Amino acid sequence: MAEPRAGSMESVLEIGGRLAEPPSAGLTAIFAAELAGQAEFFDPLGLVDLAHCLTLSEQGVIPPGAARALVQALLELHRSGTAFTPEAALGDLYTNREAWLARRTAAAGWLGTARARREALTTAFHLLLRDRLLELGAALLDFGQSVATVASRHSHSLMPDYTYLQIAQPTTLGHYLSAFAWPALRDLERVKALYERIDRCPAGCGSSNGSVALQDRAAQARRLGFAAPVRHARDAMWQPDLAIEAMGLAVAAAVGLDRLAEDLMIFATAEFGLVRVADRHARASKIMPQKRNPFALSYLRGLANRLIGEQAGVAASGRTPSGQMDNRMLPYEAVPAALRSVAQAASLMAEIVEELTFESDQAELALSDGTACATDLAERLCLALRLDYRAAHRLVGGLVRRLEAEGRSLSSLTLDKLRAACAEAGLEASRLPDGFLEAALDPWAGVTARQDVGGAAPEELAAALRELGDALTPCRRWLEEARSAQEAARRRLLTEAEAMGAGGR
Amino acid sequence: MAEPRAGSMESVLEIGGRLAEPPSAGLTAIFAAELAGQAEFFDPLGLVDLAHCLTLSEQGVIPPGAARALVQALLELHRSGTAFTPEAALGDLYTNREAWLARRTAAAGWLGTARARREALTTAFHLLLRDRLLELGAALLDFGQSVATVASRHSHSLMPDYTYLQIAQPTTLGHYLSAFAWPALRDLERVKALYERIDRCPAGCGSSNGSVALQDRAAQARRLGFAAPVRHARDAMWQPDLAIEAMGLAVAAAVGLDRLAEDLMIFATAEFGLVRVADRHARASKIMPQKRNPFALSYLRGLANRLIGEQAGVAASGRTPSGQMDNRMLPYEAVPAALRSVAQAASLMAEIVEELTFESDQAELALSDGTACATDLAERLCLALRLDYRAAHRLVGGLVRRLEAEGRSLSSLTLDKLRAACAEAGLEASRLPDGFLEAALDPWAGVTARQDVGGAAPEELAAALRELGDALTPCRRWLEEARSAQEAARRRLLTEAEAMGAGGR
Amino acid sequence: MAEPRAGSMESVLEIGGRLAEPPSAGLTAIFAAELAGQAEFFDPLGLVDLAHCLTLSEQGVIPPGAARALVQALLELHRSGTAFTPEAALGDLYTNREAWLARRTAAAGWLGTARARREALTTAFHLLLRDRLLELGAALLDFGQSVATVASRHSHSLMPDYTYLQIAQPTTLGHYLSAFAWPALRDLERVKALYERIDRCPAGCGSSNGSVALQDRAAQARRLGFAAPVRHARDAMWQPDLAIEAMGLAVAAAVGLDRLAEDLMIFATAEFGLVRVADRHARASKIMPQKRNPFALSYLRGLANRLIGEQAGVAASGRTPSGQMDNRMLPYEAVPAALRSVAQAASLMAEIVEELTFESDQAELALSDGTACATDLAERLCLALRLDYRAAHRLVGGLVRRLEAEGRSLSSLTLDKLRAACAEAGLEASRLPDGFLEAALDPWAGVTARQDVGGAAPEELAAALRELGDALTPCRRWLEEARSAQEAARRRLLTEAEAMGAGGR
Amino acid sequence: MAEPRAGSMESVLEIGGRLAEPPSAGLTAIFAAELAGQAEFFDPLGLVDLAHCLTLSEQGVIPPGAARALVQALLELHRSGTAFTPEAALGDLYTNREAWLARRTAAAGWLGTARARREALTTAFHLLLRDRLLELGAALLDFGQSVATVASRHSHSLMPDYTYLQIAQPTTLGHYLSAFAWPALRDLERVKALYERIDRCPAGCGSSNGSVALQDRAAQARRLGFAAPVRHARDAMWQPDLAIEAMGLAVAAAVGLDRLAEDLMIFATAEFGLVRVADRHARASKIMPQKRNPFALSYLRGLANRLIGEQAGVAASGRTPSGQMDNRMLPYEAVPAALRSVAQAASLMAEIVEELTFESDQAELALSDGTACATDLAERLCLALRLDYRAAHRLVGGLVRRLEAEGRSLSSLTLDKLRAACAEAGLEASRLPDGFLEAALDPWAGVTARQDVGGAAPEELAAALRELGDALTPCRRWLEEARSAQEAARRRLLTEAEAMGAGGR
Repeated sequence: MAEPRAGSMESVLEIGGRLAEPPSAGLTAIFAAELAGQAEFFDPLGLVDLAHCLTLSEQGVIPPGAARALVQALLELHRSGTAFTPEAALGDLYTNREAWLARRTAAAGWLGTARARREALTTAFHLLLRDRLLELGAALLDFGQSVATVASRHSHSLMPDYTYLQIAQPTTLGHYLSAFAWPALRDLERVKALYERIDRCPAGCGSSNGSVALQDRAAQARRLGFAAPVRHARDAMWQPDLAIEAMGLAVAAAVGLDRLAEDLMIFATAEFGLVRVADRHARASKIMPQKRNPFALSYLRGLANRLIGEQAGVAASGRTPSGQMDNRMLPYEAVPAALRSVAQAASLMAEIVEELTFESDQAELALSDGTACATDLAERLCLALRLDYRAAHRLVGGLVRRLEAEGRSLSSLTLDKLRAACAEAGLEASRLPDGFLEAALDPWAGVTARQDVGGAAPEELAAALRELGDALTPCRRWLEEARSAQEAARRRLLTEAEAMGAGGR
Repeated sequence: MAEPRAGSMESVLEIGGRLAEPPSAGLTAIFAAELAGQAEFFDPLGLVDLAHCLTLSEQGVIPPGAARALVQALLELHRSGTAFTPEAALGDLYTNREAWLARRTAAAGWLGTARARREALTTAFHLLLRDRLLELGAALLDFGQSVATVASRHSHSLMPDYTYLQIAQPTTLGHYLSAFAWPALRDLERVKALYERIDRCPAGCGSSNGSVALQDRAAQARRLGFAAPVRHARDAMWQPDLAIEAMGLAVAAAVGLDRLAEDLMIFATAEFGLVRVADRHARASKIMPQKRNPFALSYLRGLANRLIGEQAGVAASGRTPSGQMDNRMLPYEAVPAALRSVAQAASLMAEIVEELTFESDQAELALSDGTACATDLAERLCLALRLDYRAAHRLVGGLVRRLEAEGRSLSSLTLDKLRAACAEAGLEASRLPDGFLEAALDPWAGVTARQDVGGAAPEELAAALRELGDALTPCRRWLEEARSAQEAARRRLLTEAEAMGAGGR
Repeated sequence: MAEPRAGSMESVLEIGGRLAEPPSAGLTAIFAAELAGQAEFFDPLGLVDLAHCLTLSEQGVIPPGAARALVQALLELHRSGTAFTPEAALGDLYTNREAWLARRTAAAGWLGTARARREALTTAFHLLLRDRLLELGAALLDFGQSVATVASRHSHSLMPDYTYLQIAQPTTLGHYLSAFAWPALRDLERVKALYERIDRCPAGCGSSNGSVALQDRAAQARRLGFAAPVRHARDAMWQPDLAIEAMGLAVAAAVGLDRLAEDLMIFATAEFGLVRVADRHARASKIMPQKRNPFALSYLRGLANRLIGEQAGVAASGRTPSGQMDNRMLPYEAVPAALRSVAQAASLMAEIVEELTFESDQAELALSDGTACATDLAERLCLALRLDYRAAHRLVGGLVRRLEAEGRSLSSLTLDKLRAACAEAGLEASRLPDGFLEAALDPWAGVTARQDVGGAAPEELAAALRELGDALTPCRRWLEEARSAQEAARRRLLTEAEAMGAGGR
Repeated sequence: MAEPRAGSMESVLEIGGRLAEPPSAGLTAIFAAELAGQAEFFDPLGLVDLAHCLTLSEQGVIPPGAARALVQALLELHRSGTAFTPEAALGDLYTNREAWLARRTAAAGWLGTARARREALTTAFHLLLRDRLLELGAALLDFGQSVATVASRHSHSLMPDYTYLQIAQPTTLGHYLSAFAWPALRDLERVKALYERIDRCPAGCGSSNGSVALQDRAAQARRLGFAAPVRHARDAMWQPDLAIEAMGLAVAAAVGLDRLAEDLMIFATAEFGLVRVADRHARASKIMPQKRNPFALSYLRGLANRLIGEQAGVAASGRTPSGQMDNRMLPYEAVPAALRSVAQAASLMAEIVEELTFESDQAELALSDGTACATDLAERLCLALRLDYRAAHRLVGGLVRRLEAEGRSLSSLTLDKLRAACAEAGLEASRLPDGFLEAALDPWAGVTARQDVGGAAPEELAAALRELGDALTPCRRWLEEARSAQEAARRRLLTEAEAMGAGGR
C-alpha cells in the first residue's frame, strides 16, 4: 500500500497503517455525531495543542525547525476560528485538525507524540468547563443580587405565602423572594468547589500512566494556567465524578430557578394576579389575541427537565469497565452545554425578577379575608388562654369549616363569636381582651412579629439581606480573579507561541 | 404605534399588537434554543401549512385569490428547503416562516386562521414521527434479518455461552446470536403499535376544543394521509403519552443493541478472542499503534446511555399542569432524533454482525477444558444414578473445586475418579457406564441434546429461525405499504396545492 | 469437609461444594437487600416450583415417591404464605425456600434439576406482571369510566380552558375532563399489548439454551396458564425490553394522571375556585388550621417523579454484557411495585373525580370578562369582514392591551368602539351587524359552535363519549377473561398438585 | 360533632375539626406508602420533638407541668424504638407518634405548637443525613485506605493496562488500583462540603417565615447539635438543592465503585485471569456446578443503576411550585437509603480489594507478546531517529498489522526486521543501536521509565500514595470529630430531657 497523501483520510485514520479498510458509511455517520458534539472544543483544543508542542519542544523532543513550523501552523489554525469546518470523513475534531495541519506542514506529525486523542480532548474539556463554571458563577451572582435588590425594595410589601398553592401565612414579597437567593448562594459555593477540582491539568499522561517521551506535566499545567497536574495519571484520563458533579450542580441550579418560575407562572395568572411579567419576557399567542404567555418561565421549567434527563445519561455513561471512549462522548457535549444553558437561565431570571410588576392591591386583597392569619389566631389563643395548640387548632379549624359552609371566612369572625366558641369548648373566653381578634387577624402584625432568625419582620429581613450581601461579595471577587487568571494564562501561552513561531526560542 | 412592516419582527411577534415591547436579549436567546430544536420541522410544517390552507380555502374561509397567493408562496418556501435560514430575532420556526411568507404576500395573514402555533407544530411532529418510525422499523428489520442470516450459517459453530462472563454451557454462535433477533422483532411490533397511534391527525382543533372558523378536521387528516383525526380535540393538542412511548421504544431498542455490542466488545478482546470486528468498524488509536478500537460498539453503548437520560427528560416534560408549551419543546427535538439515532445504530449493528469474523478455533479451545459441560455432567449423573440434583451439583461442584486447586479442570477427570467420588458420596458408581464421561463432557453432544423449544440443537434452531422469518415477513410488507401510503399522500397534497397555486380550483 | 446439614446455609449456598467459604458480612448485607426486593415473589414462585416439579415428574426425571414428597412440601410452603420469613444468611428468596424445603424432605434436592435460580425467578416475574397488568388495566378502566360519567353529567357546564394557566377559550367541564380519558384508553391498549408479550413462559431453558434433563417447555407453559413458551431459550432468560416497556407504560399512565392532578391542584385554589376536592381526599395541616391540603394530588405528582427515575434505573440495569444478574434485580423489585402504585393512583383519581365538586358560579364568573372569547371575536371578524386572521388578531390584541391599560376587559367593549377600531384600521366596520359583539363574546355560543370532530359542543361531546364507551367495553371484557383464565390455570395447577401430593397420578 | 377521643384517628387527622370526613381507603393506602418511606425517621424525630418541647418550655410557651409530662412521654416513646408500629389509618409517622403521645398524656397537644409537620420531618431529615454522611465518609475512607494498602504492596506487580478492553500499556497492579482511590478522596471532600451545608438547623420556622409563639431558633439548633440555624426561614423549609446534591454525591461514589467492579468482573474471567475474587464474595450457581459468580460485583453495578434513576426522581421531585409536600416525600425515603447503600458498597469493595488474589503469572503472560509495548516502541523510534510520531506510529502499526496477519505479534519482531522496515520507509535504520528492541519491548523498562507526576514508576507511585495518605488523614480526623460532636449533642439533649422529665428545670 502506497504512503497516503498528508492530511488525507487514509493518513489521519491510519488506513494502510494499523487498519486495512476505511470506515464504513455507518461508522462515518457516527463520526458525524461525535463531531457535532465537539463544536465547542475548537478553541480550547488549540490552546492544548500549543501547550503540548511548546513543552515537547522545550524538552527537546521535537527538533527546533519542526517545532517552529508546527507552532506557526497551530497559531494559524487557532486564528481561523469558526471558518474551520470539519468533515466526518476525516473522523472527529482531533483528526480533522490533524488533517488540516498535515496539509500545511510535515511537522504536523509531531503533534501526536506521547499523547492520546483523549488526553487532548480531556484537557480541552477542563479548559472549557473552567470557562463555563465562571460564566455560571457570574450569572448566579447576578441572579442572587437582583433578587436581593428587589427583595430589599419590597421588605414591607405584604403578600400571602402559600403551601400546596393554598394561602398559608402573611409574608412580604421581600421575604418570599429572597428565599430564592440562598440556594443560589449555595450553588455558587458548589461552582467554586468544582472549579477547584477542574483546575487540575490532565495533560501529559501518555495513554494512562505516563510516557517514555515526554516528562513534564507540571510545565503543561503551568502553560494552560492550571493550579497543578491531576495527581494520578490514570485517574487524570477519566475522572468520571467530575462530569457527574457538574451535572448535579447544573440540575440543582436549574431546579432552584424553576421553582421560582413555577411560582411566578401561577402568581401571574389573572386568578392570582400577584405579579405581572414584563412584555419583553412574554410571547404572544398566534391564535388567541388576548394571551401574553409567560414563555420564558415555561422554558425554564423545560430546561430543568432536560437537564434532569441529561444528568442521568451522563452518569450512566461513566458506568463501564474503565478505559472506554463512550465515558467521555456524552459529557463532552452535554456538560458544557448544560452549564451554559443554566447560566443563560439565571441571567434571564435575574432580568425577569428585576422587571416584575408587583400588584400590591391584589396581594393585600388576598390577605383580606383572614385566611392567612388562622395560624396566628390559633397561636395567640394558645398563648392567651394557656390552651394547648391542638385544642386551639381544632377550635380555629372548626370555626373556619363552619364559616366556609356559610360562604364566609375568618375576617367575618367577631370577638363575641370567638368567645362563644371558646366557651362552648369549655375555655375561659373572658381572658381574650378587646382588640385580641383585630391583632390576631392583622397580617402586618403577623409579619412584624416574626423577628426570630430568618423571619419575615422587615428588620430581620434587612439583616438577612446584609448577610447575603456579605456572602456574595467574596464570590464576586473570586470570580473576577479566576477569570483574570484564565485570561492571563491564555495571553502568556499565545505570546510564548507567537515568539516561538516567529523564530525565537 | 404605526402598523409594523409585513414580516418584520414587530409584526410576527405581535409587538404593538398584544405586546408593547420586543423580547429581551435573554428571551431571544431562548428563541434561538427553541429554533435549534426545530431543525427537522421545516419540511413537515410545509405540508401542514398547505393542508391547512387548502382546507380553509375549500371551506370558503380564505377568499380564492388570497388562497392562491398563499399556496403559491407556501410552495415556493417548501421548495427552498435548507436554503431557508431562520433567525432568533423572528422567534421560532413558525414565526420565521410566517415572516418569510408575509414578505412575499399579504395573503400570509390568512395562514394563522383558527390555528395555534402548537397545532401546526404538533401535526408536523406526527408527520415527522411517522417517517422516523418507518425508518426505525426498516433498520430493525435489517438487523433482525442480518442476525438470522448469520445465525443460520453458524448453527453448527460451537462456542461457550456465558453468564456473569463466566463459561456457562456449550452453545452455537447461531443460537447465541439469534437470541438478539427476537427482542428486535418485539421492537418492531412496538413500532407498528405506536405508528398506529401516531397516525391520527391533531390538526383543526382551534386552541384546544375546536373553532368557529374552520370545521373540517377529517379533510385535514385526509390531506396529510392520516388514518383519522385524533378523536378528542384537547387530547389532540397534548397527548404526552406518545412521546413517552416513543422514547421507551427507542430505549428498548437501543438497550437491545447495546447488549450485543457489550458482548462483542468482550468477545473481541485478545483474551476471549471469539470474534473479530472488521477494520471498517474499528478506529485506530492516535497514540497506541497496536490498537484497533471497536469504536462503533462503544458508541452504541454511549447512545443507549444518552437515550436513557433523554427518556427521563421527555417524561418529566409532560409532567405539568396542562396546556404548557414546555411539554412539547424537548419532545419535538429529542424524539425524532432518538428514533433516527437508533435506526442508524440498528443498521450499523446489522453491518457489524454481517462482517464479524468468528474465530472457531478459539471458541472450541474455550470449550476444551470441560467447564462448559459441568451442568450436563451433573444432570446426566442425576438421570443415571437417580440422584437428586442438589447432590449431583454438590458432587460436581466439589470435584471442580478440588481440580481447580490442583490447577486442573473437568477435562482431566477420568471415569475412575468420578466413580471414586460417587462411591465416596455413598452412590452406586457402578451404574455409570463406560463412555458416560466422554458423552457428558462433549460439548457437541450437549448442544445437539437441547432439542426442546428454543434450544440450541441445530434442527430446533433452524425451526426457530424459520418462525422468526415468518414473523419478519409481514413486518416488511407493512413497512413498505405504510411508506408507500405516506409518499402517495404527500404527492397528492403537493399536486393539489400546485393545481390550486396554478389557478385551478 | 463434612456434608452439611440439609437446609443449612452451607448446604443451600454450596459452601463446601463449589465454594470454600461462607459469604462475608458485606455480601450477606447484599443478600438482605436482594431479599427485600423479592417480597412479592413468594406466591408466584410457589406456583412455578409446583409446575416445575409436576413436569419433571411427568417426564420421569424425579422418581414418583420423591415427586410426591416434594409436591407435598411445596404445597405446605405455599399455604404458609406470609408466615414464611426468609433470612439473609440463607441467601435470596430462592435459597431460603430451598432451605425450608430441605428441612422438610430430602426430596427437596430434586427441585433444582435442570433449572437456574434465575429461570424460576423470571417465570415468577412473568406471573407477577400478568397479575399487576390486569390490576392496572382494571384501575385505568375505572378511571376512564369515572371520567366519562362525570364528563357526561357536565356536558353543559361552562368553564374556561387554559393554556399557560391563562384563560384560553370557553369550554365545558365535560369536554375538559374527558380529554383525560383518551390517554387512559391508550394506556389500556398498551397494557394489553404488553400482557400478550408477558404471557409467554420463560420456564424450561436450562441455563440459557435448554437442558439434557428436562424437555417439555410446552407443558410448563400450559401448567402456568401461559399462551406459549418464549420462543428462544436464551431470549427467554433475559428479555430486557419487557421491563423497559412495563416501566414506560407505568410512566405514561402516571404522567397522564399527574396532569389532571396538577390542574386540579390549581383549579382547587381559592384564587381559581373552579373545583373543590372532597375532604376525604384532603389532609389537614398540623400547624395551619385553615388548610385543607390536596395531599392525594400532590402524592400523585410525586409518584410520577419517582417512576420517571425508576424507569431510568431499570433501563440502565439492562445495559450490560449479557447474562448478568443485576439485569433482573432492580426490575424484579421496581416493575411490579410501579404497576401496582399506578393502579392505586388511577383508582384514587377515579374516586377524586367522582367526588369533585364543580363550582359552576365561579367558572361562569371566570368567563364573564370576555377574555375567553377573544379568539372567537377575532375569527368572527375575519369571517364577517373577509379580513385576514393576522389583521383580526392584531386588532383584537391591540384592543385587549388598551382596555387592560384602563383596567378593563373585553366585556366592556361596545359595538361602537369595535366599529371605531375597525374604521381606524381602514376596515368597513359597517359590515358588522348589530348583535355581532354579543354573539362573539357569548361563551355558550362559542362552545355550541364547536361541532367538528372532538369539539366542545355538547352533542359532539356526547358522540365522543359514546365512542369512548364503545372502546372501553371490549377492554373490560378482555380484562375479565384474562383474569378468569389466570385464576382457572392457578386452580388447575393446585388441583393437579394436590392430587399428586395425595398420592394420585 | 362530639370531641374525638385523644389519640384517635379523628383527633390526629382533624376530622370534625378542619375536615368533615375521614380519609378514603385510597388516601389511606397513600398514607401507608408515605409511612413505609419514613421508617428511618423514628429516632431522629424523637430528638427533634424533645428539642422542640424543651425550647417551648424554656420560652415559657408550654406550662411547666405540661412540659414535664410531654417530655416524659417523649422519652418513653423514644426508648420504645422499633417496638412502635405505626398504622396508616393514623396517617404518617408524625400523626402516628402524636396519637401515641395523646393516648399517654393530654400535654401531647402542646407538641404541635408553632410547628409544621414538615418542619419536624425536615429537621429529622437533616439529622439523618448528618449521620448517613459520616457513615459514607467512613466507608469511603476505608475503601481509599484498602486500595492504597494493596496498591503499595503491588507497586512492582506488572500487568497490562487496558483501554476499550484491549491491551494498552504495561503498568503495575499498584498503579492501576490506586487510580480508584483518588475519586474516593474527591467523594470524601464532597461529603464534607455537603455535611457543612446539612449541618444547619431548619427548626423553628412556623410554616415558612417564623411564628408569633416561638422565637428561639438558635436554641433549637444548639440542642440538636447543629452549627447554626438555616439563615432564611422559608429556604429552611425546602432547600431542594441539598437532596439533589446528596444524590449526586451518592451517584458519583457508586459509579466510581462500579468502574472498579466492572473491571474486576472482566479481569476475573477465566479468559483474562488477572485476579480471583474470594469465595466469600462470590455466589454459587444453583444450576451450574462449575460457577463461582462474582455476585457482589454485579450487585454493585446494579446499585449504581438504581441510584442513577433515583437521582432523576429526586431532582424531578423538587421541580414544582414552591411549598409542596411531594418535594420531600421521595427525598425522605431515597436519600438516606442511597447514602447508606453506597456506604455498604464502599465497605464491601474495600473487603473485596483486600482479599483479591492477583494472578501475577497470568498478568506477565499477557504482557509477553509485546503488544503492550507498541507505544513505547514508537516513542523510542521517534526519539532515536528524530522521526515524527505519526510516521513512527504508522511504521509500528503497519508492522503489527502484518505480524497479526501471520498470526504473530510484536514479540516476534527482530531488530533486523525492524531495521528493514525503517529502511523501507526511507529512514536511517542504522541509528537503532543493538539492544534497542529489547529495551523497547520490555514492560518493566516501560514502567520504570514513567517517572513524571502520576506515572507508573514504583518510586513515583510511592510518592503519590504518600500524598494520598496525607490527604486521607485529615479526613479521618474530621470524621471522628464530627461523629463525636453528634454523639455529644445527642447525650446532652437526652440528659436535659431526662432532667426535665424528672421534674427539674
